[in-house]
Amino acid sequence: MAIASRRIVVAVDESEESMYALSWCLKNIVAASATDAAEHGGDARKDTIVLLHARRPRTIYPPMDGTGYLFSADIVEGMERYGAQLSKSVMEKAKQLCAEFPDVVVETRVESGDPRDVICEAVESIKPDILVMGSHGYGPIKRAFLGSVSSHCAQHVKCPVLIVKMPKH
Amino acid sequence: MAIASRRIVVAVDESEESMYALSWCLKNIVAASATDAAEHGGDARKDTIVLLHARRPRTIYPPMDGTGYLFSADIVEGMERYGAQLSKSVMEKAKQLCAEFPDVVVETRVESGDPRDVICEAVESIKPDILVMGSHGYGPIKRAFLGSVSSHCAQHVKCPVLIVKMPKH
Repeated sequence: MAIASRRIVVAVDESEESMYALSWCLKNIVAASATDAAEHGGDARKDTIVLLHARRPRTIYPPMDGTGYLFSADIVEGMERYGAQLSKSVMEKAKQLCAEFPDVVVETRVESGDPRDVICEAVESIKPDILVMGSHGYGPIKRAFLGSVSSHCAQHVKCPVLIVKMPKH
Repeated sequence: MAIASRRIVVAVDESEESMYALSWCLKNIVAASATDAAEHGGDARKDTIVLLHARRPRTIYPPMDGTGYLFSADIVEGMERYGAQLSKSVMEKAKQLCAEFPDVVVETRVESGDPRDVICEAVESIKPDILVMGSHGYGPIKRAFLGSVSSHCAQHVKCPVLIVKMPKH
């Protein structure tokens, strides 16, 4: 049964939940069809995973904070560097997980901004077959303050959305 | 690659959206692995789909409605019969879709109650690998009044949730 290749966008961040979602998707959505493809001589489908990461936007640090201390250029630069390193290490970890599935094509995309906007805009332009996201599983109070990236995106994007929750240990 | 069989709960109702979600799931989640199983001599995985339908609860009709007309026993019975027929035809249609995929085991479950509660309770007891739901894709105003069954369930169940939206034609 030859089925067209699929594009799967997986939103990744530094949380354990998002890495769990990625590996769940690789095992449950990608793996079986990749094996299938190999047995058909490799001419069947080969899924593409687009790893999408939203980098926190460059904050405008006021030269003086509330307590009157000065943010030196060094500190601001240090924060920027930390952000870049975080993105890099998230992507490295995600690519490592994908590497166990040689039949999948991996693409990466890092955008700066609020994860909600980044994800919705990326889905709009990539038009994937499915969007996969982890869920932090906040309780009702924490959710009211922090909002839920996954519910926001599930409501706003047009493609099927898979929200993967980590099993509680 | 032998992977354990999965239990997939698919919430179905009379909407086109829920039938679309079911057939998307059959094609994208079930099909590839079933083919894979067949090629391994049938000893690999065979997914189970649990078709879950929430029947509107038996409404307590007051003997007099606001305008003073009487609901005769005949009418009440007619409404009940209509509800039962609706459930039956939903299940028939869903089973027909599944029949195209002979490698999947189909179970059905009809419960009476609000779809939100029925789905959350069923997931709690069945503990499936994934819950699949359609989405009506209401706008913000309609959603505020009707609520969204899919977002409610996505927030409350513990397993991965796949929300499938119908592409707009």
